[in-house]
Amino acid sequence: MQALSSSFFLQMAVILTACRLVGWLGKKLGQPQVVGEMVAGVILGPSLLGGIFPEASAKLFTPETRGVLYVGAQLGVGLYMFLVGMEFRTDLFRSRVRSAASVSIAGMVVPFVLAGLLTPWLFKIPELFMPKTQLYQAGLFLGAAIAITAFPMLARIIHERGLAGTSLGTLALAAGAIDDAAAWCVLALVLASSGGASNMAVLAIAGGGIYTVLMLTIGKRALAGLGRVAARDGAVSPLLMAFVLVLFCISAWFTDSIGIHSVFGGFILGISMPRGILNEELTKKLEPFTVIFLLPMFFTYSGLDTRLAVMLDPTILLVTVVILLASVLGKGAACWAAARLHGEDSRTALAIGALMNSRGMMELIIINIGLQKGIIGPKLFAILALMAIVTTLMATPLFQWVYGRHSGKIAQPIPDGLDA
Amino acid sequence: MQALSSSFFLQMAVILTACRLVGWLGKKLGQPQVVGEMVAGVILGPSLLGGIFPEASAKLFTPETRGVLYVGAQLGVGLYMFLVGMEFRTDLFRSRVRSAASVSIAGMVVPFVLAGLLTPWLFKIPELFMPKTQLYQAGLFLGAAIAITAFPMLARIIHERGLAGTSLGTLALAAGAIDDAAAWCVLALVLASSGGASNMAVLAIAGGGIYTVLMLTIGKRALAGLGRVAARDGAVSPLLMAFVLVLFCISAWFTDSIGIHSVFGGFILGISMPRGILNEELTKKLEPFTVIFLLPMFFTYSGLDTRLAVMLDPTILLVTVVILLASVLGKGAACWAAARLHGEDSRTALAIGALMNSRGMMELIIINIGLQKGIIGPKLFAILALMAIVTTLMATPLFQWVYGRHSGKIAQPIPDGLDA
Repeated sequence: MQALSSSFFLQMAVILTACRLVGWLGKKLGQPQVVGEMVAGVILGPSLLGGIFPEASAKLFTPETRGVLYVGAQLGVGLYMFLVGMEFRTDLFRSRVRSAASVSIAGMVVPFVLAGLLTPWLFKIPELFMPKTQLYQAGLFLGAAIAITAFPMLARIIHERGLAGTSLGTLALAAGAIDDAAAWCVLALVLASSGGASNMAVLAIAGGGIYTVLMLTIGKRALAGLGRVAARDGAVSPLLMAFVLVLFCISAWFTDSIGIHSVFGGFILGISMPRGILNEELTKKLEPFTVIFLLPMFFTYSGLDTRLAVMLDPTILLVTVVILLASVLGKGAACWAAARLHGEDSRTALAIGALMNSRGMMELIIINIGLQKGIIGPKLFAILALMAIVTTLMATPLFQWVYGRHSGKIAQPIPDGLDA
Repeated sequence: MQALSSSFFLQMAVILTACRLVGWLGKKLGQPQVVGEMVAGVILGPSLLGGIFPEASAKLFTPETRGVLYVGAQLGVGLYMFLVGMEFRTDLFRSRVRSAASVSIAGMVVPFVLAGLLTPWLFKIPELFMPKTQLYQAGLFLGAAIAITAFPMLARIIHERGLAGTSLGTLALAAGAIDDAAAWCVLALVLASSGGASNMAVLAIAGGGIYTVLMLTIGKRALAGLGRVAARDGAVSPLLMAFVLVLFCISAWFTDSIGIHSVFGGFILGISMPRGILNEELTKKLEPFTVIFLLPMFFTYSGLDTRLAVMLDPTILLVTVVILLASVLGKGAACWAAARLHGEDSRTALAIGALMNSRGMMELIIINIGLQKGIIGPKLFAILALMAIVTTLMATPLFQWVYGRHSGKIAQPIPDGLDA
């Protein structure tokens, strides 16, 4: 046991150093912290550290510590999605639903159409999807993977630039939120249907659906009571915070148990939470440790599963290029075109395309779930991990280039936090 | 792997609920949160839950999740000791070292004398100490276990009551700090000498000594630079917080590796940190998650090792009563007597005795290290765990009774935080 904690502390020292070092280098190039951490995870994995120093890597990431890294990663993304849920503003849906419709529909339909066209071909290539995955599940999963947006990062960029009230800001926020919600629903359906036995699928779909509806109605009303307690006290007591963490654990456990994933539990609880002091104080108390200590565990765990060496196979390289193109066209170009058709000027449309095309940590969360649940294989995992990094890398320079000039502001690095 | 995260979330929901429920009941009886959590840990262990519902207990605490619970517990106490170190005010040593000398010397010498008298007898009883433990190590360990004070809890009580500037407050704080520092040094010596091979002992003693001296001189000066960065920014950036967490992990790993324990690494780093905005902001960002989420993992891990059923053996019961008496007399009564001889009035002396006698989580940390490192056996572990709970339980009512009346204030429950 003692060796376990000793290894853990050493591992975390290396992980946190790598994430911050690469993040710092990325920031010099105008990239947000999340890009650096995504790259750091891959560097720590078999693609680089494990390839060059296999012995050091094996010593650092022992099989015994793998379970700890896994649980830390799940706790990290679960809490992160809870925090994202708490920041999620459902009023955006309501106020701008019509004007954002064309962008969000384009950013949803085109990815799924392209995924539908590509999947029959990809399905024939061995080891991309797992044997038990059905064709329609493969298509839906790929569609969701292409359609997802780094919504928290998009929201952060818009907020930081003071664009929240502008046409660009509102459009991108509303469209991003709608598309992300839709992509997560599709993913939940894929997970629910891939449970193996059909009664598992029913449990997952019915359980997930009922749980979501209950949380957004009765749950939301009950949670509002907690918000009033916090507002009355002007603070969040340790007891109240512990109570919310218990709810979080139960929500994560429940969604895990019925066959969807703990991140849904975190997210659903987050959007059901009342806005106000409870929300703000919980974010202050949970965000630093989650983002700075726990999320690097997720990036590393994900990176340990990412074998970029698979690209050496010409077929896989071709698949990578095709999926990358489909992703950029299906999301970035489609949203740009929809915005242009909607009457936006060329620069605003390009900025929207760049922001919607960035997938960040959301993509990594989706593909880790896909790998865990046996939907995709390690090869497609590596391809999509690379796609996630490349599309996220593109976003900031593209956005700065078209919109930085337009607004006359100097390019500023984005502070980290919920910007993944 | 998925089962692992699912079990983890369920486990944490149960652990956090138990800790808060028992803590809440304890508060109704005027006890601080830490007492509730100590009791909750024992309840979740084989002494109650495991005894009555062995199957439910085995399902909840699976062998696979044991490693995660262990690492979470070590991270929790490590970070906790780091936070305690950051709150530790070395100026108390300097300003009141003479006036507190008699109390602190009494609170140190009497426990070690009593431990020295008891150990030859205890040493003959099987399964109290581990076979490889030497008599002098057993005596020093028992002395440290009796001499330790719940310093953070003591500081919190004094702070909450506004007694920081009073004779009682300064005396108790200074004496508590000196005694705790001495007890930890003795423990480090025991651990260092019990490493097995003599070169391991040299490494531990020399390494630990050199590390402490370096950290308190060069390290302290270098860390002051971080404090200036935070003061200049008026905040702690994510990069700065990540850097401190890397230092924490390295410090914990280093002290673990040389054969003392990761808590020393956390504590030494904590006392070396500059005071000011860095200190305050880090505490705000790390304390809630550490105290509310991670420490309950420690109490549970400790409780899973606590088998109160060993008390059914008449010899062990006798040992328990004797150790309990020795602890109360050796610490509480000795400090009371020293304060009286020092000229304090009867109530102040009683209050000092009650506070110094409370051992809280510090005792649990020490005995968990003793068990882990093979110094004590499961039976002495259970005895000392019970002693920790009983002496901590005694403190608040005793303090309220003698000092609550004296100061004319109404007994108030102590808010939690660093009060363990």
